[in-house]
Amino acid sequence: MSNYRFQTADHIIAGRHSVANIGEHLALVGLPIQKALIVTQPALVQTGAVASLEAALKDRGIAVDQTTNVEPEPTLENIEQVFADTVGAQDYDVLIGLGGGSILDTTKLLSVLKTNNKGLEAMLGTDLVEHAGVPTILIPTTSGTGAEVTPNAIVTLPEKELKIGVVSRHLLPSLVILDPVLTTGLPKPITAATGMDAFTHALESYISTKANPISDMFALEAIRLISANIVQAYQQGDDLDAREKMLVGAMYGGMALTAAGTAAVHAMAYPLGGKYKIAHGVANSMLLPHVTQFNLDAIQERLASVAGPMGIDVAGLSDGDAAQAVVDKIKELTKTLEIPQDLAEYGVDKDSIEEMAVAALDVKRLMDNNPKTVTKNDAIAIYSKLLV
Amino acid sequence: MSNYRFQTADHIIAGRHSVANIGEHLALVGLPIQKALIVTQPALVQTGAVASLEAALKDRGIAVDQTTNVEPEPTLENIEQVFADTVGAQDYDVLIGLGGGSILDTTKLLSVLKTNNKGLEAMLGTDLVEHAGVPTILIPTTSGTGAEVTPNAIVTLPEKELKIGVVSRHLLPSLVILDPVLTTGLPKPITAATGMDAFTHALESYISTKANPISDMFALEAIRLISANIVQAYQQGDDLDAREKMLVGAMYGGMALTAAGTAAVHAMAYPLGGKYKIAHGVANSMLLPHVTQFNLDAIQERLASVAGPMGIDVAGLSDGDAAQAVVDKIKELTKTLEIPQDLAEYGVDKDSIEEMAVAALDVKRLMDNNPKTVTKNDAIAIYSKLLV
Repeated sequence: MSNYRFQTADHIIAGRHSVANIGEHLALVGLPIQKALIVTQPALVQTGAVASLEAALKDRGIAVDQTTNVEPEPTLENIEQVFADTVGAQDYDVLIGLGGGSILDTTKLLSVLKTNNKGLEAMLGTDLVEHAGVPTILIPTTSGTGAEVTPNAIVTLPEKELKIGVVSRHLLPSLVILDPVLTTGLPKPITAATGMDAFTHALESYISTKANPISDMFALEAIRLISANIVQAYQQGDDLDAREKMLVGAMYGGMALTAAGTAAVHAMAYPLGGKYKIAHGVANSMLLPHVTQFNLDAIQERLASVAGPMGIDVAGLSDGDAAQAVVDKIKELTKTLEIPQDLAEYGVDKDSIEEMAVAALDVKRLMDNNPKTVTKNDAIAIYSKLLV
Repeated sequence: MSNYRFQTADHIIAGRHSVANIGEHLALVGLPIQKALIVTQPALVQTGAVASLEAALKDRGIAVDQTTNVEPEPTLENIEQVFADTVGAQDYDVLIGLGGGSILDTTKLLSVLKTNNKGLEAMLGTDLVEHAGVPTILIPTTSGTGAEVTPNAIVTLPEKELKIGVVSRHLLPSLVILDPVLTTGLPKPITAATGMDAFTHALESYISTKANPISDMFALEAIRLISANIVQAYQQGDDLDAREKMLVGAMYGGMALTAAGTAAVHAMAYPLGGKYKIAHGVANSMLLPHVTQFNLDAIQERLASVAGPMGIDVAGLSDGDAAQAVVDKIKELTKTLEIPQDLAEYGVDKDSIEEMAVAALDVKRLMDNNPKTVTKNDAIAIYSKLLV
């Protein structure tokens, strides 16, 4: 194995009501804070989450602006417009992202757009951001993307029907706050899709060709925490213990994927998001059981070692049987959590599949991490399982 | 549980020959580097490790100075003298610590002494360092202290017969490099004592009253890695796989203790280091089995859950029996690794013990983390077990 690497947020605070206590943690950002921008989404204004955060900041004498103009899975144009309307025109000491993955990713991008003399298009790719950005605080409200601890931000390019990533260590935040209280009100379908998305991050990192001792630890602990708590969080949304473990598990999923990368599930999800606007978490969750079944014969031993952390009793099972039990358990979770299993609902038909397969194979950065080569026919066969 | 916190080095690179590849990773420090200081110890000059590092830096056009004047378990005076002779008089873009815990801690202190207008004495304590220091790169050559990822640095005050810590987030490095090749030449007694020191960090963090879901993950993985590899690393020092796992395990021990703190073993080790000059790792290793036996009845369930990660078969055992099996396994490791078990060898006699017990109880910051209250008589009884 070659050298491997780990990097994460500067500081992480976790626990119930940690957002209400944000004032105590602001010193970790390292600079005096007089003026902050909250980047968030309308639903969180309605729940009162934004008002609570704002009150905690104002208690410390901080002037607060907010924007709710970031679209779900935002386009390059939308992000640049939000930039022009907020950070471009004003000087903030800190940018606070409060929301799901799209909000957190956009907050990271606004931060570096402010300090680098280039537009967003010129940042698309790996290591094209030169300067550290305005300090950020990221507060996830779903247990899903792990975006709070990844150096990635995803941008939609609608004219190309593509999603593309900005990857830079300068996207990592100064401070992450994981407060399970914020996630108790998540609707069931979002709890399901974002939770299985986090599970996907962990599983794909674990079977990635770039897996290493550091990514493995985070991946297995994420798998353990999510497997043990996702159904409870889904069925009993106000269970704070389950919600807290899901938040920590999703963060570990983000740490694992930062260290090892994701693979074919993510590559195949790209066309579903770019062209058919299927939310990232939903697309990954739909594909996960089918791609894992496809990979099984190439990674029996590795997959078998996931059974224990998933709570599967493997006494007396061969590696092959234990690996199949893992895939079966993923399929069972998919059913219990009512993950959509029909791409037709999103406007995909049989004739679109070949084009999607070609686009998926084109995401070479991720396909290269997959432990088994995916051919065009393989991809077509996998997508076809989702047309019932 | 209240809120909990995680912080670590900005970037971590691990794997064989990662020091030889340092040139590829220097960009992670984030600033142009023209001039570097290597803080190291004479033994590493003799092994050629310093020359290799220097060559890799010079390949990138970096001017390199070095100092080997840091004493083992350095005093305040020694650190200030090294500062005056090196960093105080010269401007370096980065300080590189290559060595054991004393070297890494001193490198962290030199970094902040340069950028804060105060002497070392005024920094002793928690959060008394105001400004970020000169960027540091920390390269451990023992699998022990985990100092490469802790925000702590220990200073000896000989006139007070005390060791005292500087604790500040500004002590965390820009870059950590874990290269197992560097540790293959470690003498057996150092492999043993530093390895059991790392195990102690993990176990004490796990049973600490401040343990939390983040520290638990690092603690259990450290316990798993060290238990599985320490005897092999001791008996077969050139086994790179065992050495690599020990290095990663020791780092996780440092991450665990940063998140949860250590407890009575460390408190009781302080007088052994401060007055009797027993190396930190040796003192912790000597005390660990006896303090754990003392704690057992207060933490049966918690200790029992360490059995699995230690590779102990617990089928059919009660929590109490599994916990005792953990203590027995620690005692067995102590024997196999030939950890000293007689304080008389270091000049301690029966009459000194009461004074040591008083001094240990005085380390309240750590004693408060212990899951069972330690009285003066308890401490005397534990020290007495080490006078055979």
